[in-house]
Amino acid sequence: MSSAPGLGLPMAVPEAGLPARVRIHEVGARDGLQNEKATVATGVKAEFVRRLADAGLTTIEATSFVHPRWVPQLADAEELFPQVAGLPVDLPVLVPNERGLDRALALGATRVAVFASATESFAKANLNRTVDEALAMFEPVVARAKAAGGHVRGYLSMCFGDPWEGAVPIPQVVRVCRALLDMGCDELSLGDTIGVATPGHVRALLTELDAPVEKLGVHFHDTYGQALANTYAALQHGVTTVDASAGGLGGCPYAKSATGNLATEDLVWMLQGLGIDTGVDLGRLVATSAWMAGHLGRPSPSRTVRALSHKEQ
Amino acid sequence: MSSAPGLGLPMAVPEAGLPARVRIHEVGARDGLQNEKATVATGVKAEFVRRLADAGLTTIEATSFVHPRWVPQLADAEELFPQVAGLPVDLPVLVPNERGLDRALALGATRVAVFASATESFAKANLNRTVDEALAMFEPVVARAKAAGGHVRGYLSMCFGDPWEGAVPIPQVVRVCRALLDMGCDELSLGDTIGVATPGHVRALLTELDAPVEKLGVHFHDTYGQALANTYAALQHGVTTVDASAGGLGGCPYAKSATGNLATEDLVWMLQGLGIDTGVDLGRLVATSAWMAGHLGRPSPSRTVRALSHKEQ
Repeated sequence: MSSAPGLGLPMAVPEAGLPARVRIHEVGARDGLQNEKATVATGVKAEFVRRLADAGLTTIEATSFVHPRWVPQLADAEELFPQVAGLPVDLPVLVPNERGLDRALALGATRVAVFASATESFAKANLNRTVDEALAMFEPVVARAKAAGGHVRGYLSMCFGDPWEGAVPIPQVVRVCRALLDMGCDELSLGDTIGVATPGHVRALLTELDAPVEKLGVHFHDTYGQALANTYAALQHGVTTVDASAGGLGGCPYAKSATGNLATEDLVWMLQGLGIDTGVDLGRLVATSAWMAGHLGRPSPSRTVRALSHKEQ
Repeated sequence: MSSAPGLGLPMAVPEAGLPARVRIHEVGARDGLQNEKATVATGVKAEFVRRLADAGLTTIEATSFVHPRWVPQLADAEELFPQVAGLPVDLPVLVPNERGLDRALALGATRVAVFASATESFAKANLNRTVDEALAMFEPVVARAKAAGGHVRGYLSMCFGDPWEGAVPIPQVVRVCRALLDMGCDELSLGDTIGVATPGHVRALLTELDAPVEKLGVHFHDTYGQALANTYAALQHGVTTVDASAGGLGGCPYAKSATGNLATEDLVWMLQGLGIDTGVDLGRLVATSAWMAGHLGRPSPSRTVRALSHKEQ
């Protein structure tokens, strides 16, 4: 055990059976900013990614090569990516289809992610396709990225609940997970897009899926405040990749429905308390999120950012 | 498993080894309102307690018989208690000392709570006594309450961290816990007053303490977003009493440092998802917290209240 009064760090009390190290897949610059109303200048985004790397994050999803019509906030992907490409960290980018992959490859980005749905309703709403049509669309994307020596992450959204369909049956989720792994995805990110999951549900899905834990990441939203409890359940299952968004970007604390991502700082607080190594300097990360909150013109929804920013003042 | 699309309930996926039922010790009317800037009218408080009972909560801490100088928000205890005393629920009240106990007993309140500290710094700041002097002060309170046929809860604050002392050594906490149990407290509430605890720390304290779980409750704050993960760890240890505050009362979401209690709604969401019975009707509880937020003139900090209030509109 170690204590750090005044430093704003939890006492580290390791727990038997948990991983020694967790890799945080930082999604603030892509998933976060994509869901913020304000559009952030390209230079600020580049500075954000640099500061995240400087805080010790090693996987920073940088942007998305989706058509600017759908995500105007990230329309500057071609301009942004070269500004951060030299950083000594992994910089995956989202590619919705082959056209997006072409754009990414043209810039030398070979670490890519595709975005699938576990439910027909969301596949239709988000991709205007059935689940299987979407999988067919991703097949050449994955094959070509792999042929180019790349690494492919498969996001799977609506793994627990869906706003139109309610609770999502676990076998339905497992089928799509297996299809993504079978087509060559190097890792899966299991997404609770509407934040309804609870720890037993997480454990049940991971058990049913029965995939190698090194191929699995979890992506929880804090809509109902469950993200960290769910993460803890996933760690107990052996998962070592956790998605989070610096400062909780992507969920506005003043909107009536805050559908935000798990805040990276709240995650780091728990992992440090559990004695799990992340490589992240919490103070630098909090300073970065407070700085970005200034650019967005509103406080961070991360409880840890609020508590520690207050302390520093 | 059951699903309830549109109803805003999580899919229930029970987990082996967890309790079948949890008793929520609702602290919103006392601990919550005591820490809100706004003073609420006595009639509104009585209506609040009634609505909490109507929502299915069975233990509702009603008020505090502390001197009005220290907690002006609860100066109306004598007026309030008789307005709710007839409700078919347990209505514990906080009593700081024998004078407070006299006031409680005069109104027929025999279910009382004392408020101790695990650290010298907080005992000094809050009670102007050493830890042992405070314990000596509580001894006749506990003895007389028990002699009157009462039930005594011992709150223990600063069980994990202290703002002056940093991390609190577990043996120090265990010593005060045992003293409170030895003097006759029927139950303990282990408080993370500044919200710094993480799940491994919770598990370590419960293991070291090694007390009968039916005598233990946990009281977590969401300052760093850890309250629900910590609760989940306590459930895995077998704890079946969890403190929470309706709507997260007691922590302002717009203050720079939100030191709020765990919101009862966020807790109920997790427990329902785990298939653990609480007897609480989440819809009624959310409506009650939204109503109280109106009286306080600000939105609830509970993520579940925000998400479900939005849905209903």
